[in-house]
Amino acid sequence: MARCDELARVTATPGRIERVYLSPEHARVNRLAAEWMREVGMRTWQDAAGNQVGRIEAAGGRVPSRSDGVSRPSDTPALLLGSHLDTVIDAGRFDGIAGVLIALEVVRLLRVPTDTGWAVPLPFPIEVVAFSDEEGTRFGKALLGSSAVAGSWNDAWWTLTDADGVSLRQAFLEFGLDPARIGEAARRPDELVAYLEAHIEQGPALDRAGEPLAVVSSIASARRFQLVVEGEARHAGGTPYDMRRDALLGASEAALAVERVCAAEHHIIGTVGRFEAFPGAVNVIPGEVRFSLDLRGEFDGERDRVWDVLSRDLDEIMGRRGLRWSAREVHSAPAVFCAPLLQDVVAAGIRATLPVRSDAAPVLFSPAGHDGMALGAITDVGMLFLRNPDGISHHPDEFVSAGDVAYGIRALAESILHLAAEPR
Amino acid sequence: MARCDELARVTATPGRIERVYLSPEHARVNRLAAEWMREVGMRTWQDAAGNQVGRIEAAGGRVPSRSDGVSRPSDTPALLLGSHLDTVIDAGRFDGIAGVLIALEVVRLLRVPTDTGWAVPLPFPIEVVAFSDEEGTRFGKALLGSSAVAGSWNDAWWTLTDADGVSLRQAFLEFGLDPARIGEAARRPDELVAYLEAHIEQGPALDRAGEPLAVVSSIASARRFQLVVEGEARHAGGTPYDMRRDALLGASEAALAVERVCAAEHHIIGTVGRFEAFPGAVNVIPGEVRFSLDLRGEFDGERDRVWDVLSRDLDEIMGRRGLRWSAREVHSAPAVFCAPLLQDVVAAGIRATLPVRSDAAPVLFSPAGHDGMALGAITDVGMLFLRNPDGISHHPDEFVSAGDVAYGIRALAESILHLAAEPR
Repeated sequence: MARCDELARVTATPGRIERVYLSPEHARVNRLAAEWMREVGMRTWQDAAGNQVGRIEAAGGRVPSRSDGVSRPSDTPALLLGSHLDTVIDAGRFDGIAGVLIALEVVRLLRVPTDTGWAVPLPFPIEVVAFSDEEGTRFGKALLGSSAVAGSWNDAWWTLTDADGVSLRQAFLEFGLDPARIGEAARRPDELVAYLEAHIEQGPALDRAGEPLAVVSSIASARRFQLVVEGEARHAGGTPYDMRRDALLGASEAALAVERVCAAEHHIIGTVGRFEAFPGAVNVIPGEVRFSLDLRGEFDGERDRVWDVLSRDLDEIMGRRGLRWSAREVHSAPAVFCAPLLQDVVAAGIRATLPVRSDAAPVLFSPAGHDGMALGAITDVGMLFLRNPDGISHHPDEFVSAGDVAYGIRALAESILHLAAEPR
Repeated sequence: MARCDELARVTATPGRIERVYLSPEHARVNRLAAEWMREVGMRTWQDAAGNQVGRIEAAGGRVPSRSDGVSRPSDTPALLLGSHLDTVIDAGRFDGIAGVLIALEVVRLLRVPTDTGWAVPLPFPIEVVAFSDEEGTRFGKALLGSSAVAGSWNDAWWTLTDADGVSLRQAFLEFGLDPARIGEAARRPDELVAYLEAHIEQGPALDRAGEPLAVVSSIASARRFQLVVEGEARHAGGTPYDMRRDALLGASEAALAVERVCAAEHHIIGTVGRFEAFPGAVNVIPGEVRFSLDLRGEFDGERDRVWDVLSRDLDEIMGRRGLRWSAREVHSAPAVFCAPLLQDVVAAGIRATLPVRSDAAPVLFSPAGHDGMALGAITDVGMLFLRNPDGISHHPDEFVSAGDVAYGIRALAESILHLAAEPR
């Protein structure tokens, strides 16, 4: 908990948390994470995408020494644990961060046997990855860090720009990374056992159910769009309503349509988070509005059907108002289902941690995206959710209790012991 | 027309027109205007609010020489002509500007008698004022320049800030003006004969009617508000609709309510021009929206009744959505009625200019605000509107034809001759 506070102080904006990809704050938290990784006996490196990685070998594992002096993983397949250290703007202090720190505490717990008798020699190395970009805050494209690890980096991303016009390529160079070496961050499936992540729920389900932990069944199918509505900027006083083509009013109707269409579905959530009107003067009718749409669903088909319905609604709204609209898809990820074996071991970990609850551990679908969405391309993914009081996330009031974090550490460690005991 | 182009090149943003109060661009256009004023024989000065003024004495008028060497108006009451040189963001090149340049051409026309026989010695001096701030673009408060001339400057304005946090007081100092001397810009009613302004219509009425010029009957009653809607910024994925307090959706409904309520009235126009959602991240529910409301009507009572109806609608919308809202009034101006005598002389000027039209000159109410709204506090106000094709204003496509400008110059000069011929 103290380390969550310490990381929260690494921010681009005093008074609120803002830590984006390839920023000076990113470099600072990587250095902190590396220090803490070494403290629990891990070898550390920053990969070619700016992810901070630590590795500890299995019992008897051989650490290869290389002539270039760079510490690298052995060839033994490793269990990946982790989450991300980047944030949204005005973020909370646990989203992602808690998962990285829980993973480190799990390593500490497994390395320092106590009277629980956990000194079981692990059959696999463990790596903890602090992903560098999950939120996509800076370049509008999420999962950049984990996509690099999954080998699914797309060269089209190099020309993405941030709000100041800095390209992703330029930001790489300024951070001290070589864009040409991005492929070196990619891991092969045969190097990995699985990926396990602990994360706050970012929703109210566990809090409402009075449960501290849950097994995650799947990670939402998601699509993100940048939409533009174009009308005509005109004088606010002199233009009668019948001559107006007010982009703000069209975009306002669109935002309400997103709510109406999604709320009518069971497992679809649509959000307009960014919304900017231009030219933005008190006495000028907005001629253009740019806004984002974040669409999530448990199943890809349902999500795509909602987008089709919305597209027809937007055609009708904009047609009626004499406006043009266009949408550019900036992110698309299919639903990722957690591996049945990993769901089982996470459930076993929860049951071992919370013995008074003899019934089955809660199982939740995650509408929020996670690094596992990218990792699913190269290995099995499992996730453990921690109770998030009132479901507040991406907000300074985001919280998870120290008690629930202690449960989470124990449950993730127990899950790993169950996984280690599985016949492979 | 060439001078409109020349002024359009004085901009803070290459490629579009942006010229705000107390900026380097303001200083540059004042220097240009002063040069052009002197070219038609005027003495010039920049007043204590940054308005650029030129004065030419009546036939036989005495120019007082002062021991401090500063050129000042004589005591003879003057006819004020003018308009403003500041702009909105991404503005057109005629709004305000055309009025200042037409006034200068009128002075030229009256000073250089042609075969029209206009060499009538005027019974009053003429001053042309290029007002420094009419739009209120920089500090959100309109009519700063003309309010100073009208003696209605409010010391509460000194702490208004621009988008960079620069206060109006600080901007005065940086521009080289002394805030303590603002009172020196004020003119006394007994120094003035009247205020006459030519301006593009900023609406489509003349274009639709096929008329080049109109008499203005009154200038809109206007109120401006800064509204804030507050909800809760939360994670876009994990927060179900029943837990959301989405400020963007509430503000979107508010913008649509403005349209619905105003469109149901005959002479009310309401516009939401500035609209900003915070924190503005793709995957965060907007916790706050700040937006402007510009409300104009022919009559104060009608305008105030609409605001009352809107306020009740906002209470309902925000109450239903669990949002808070507040409004700060940043501008309020009662309707200003043009003096009947000045309406008559402007009509006579139009009839003298467009002899083929023997019927009465068109008369329009102006929903757009003008410097005359402030000047109305100290003198009679009259206005002449010029046809504005398609009614496009506050936009790069804003236009007025050279032919209509020529009509406007002639009509304003004829109006002044009619005014000069009136018994006083």
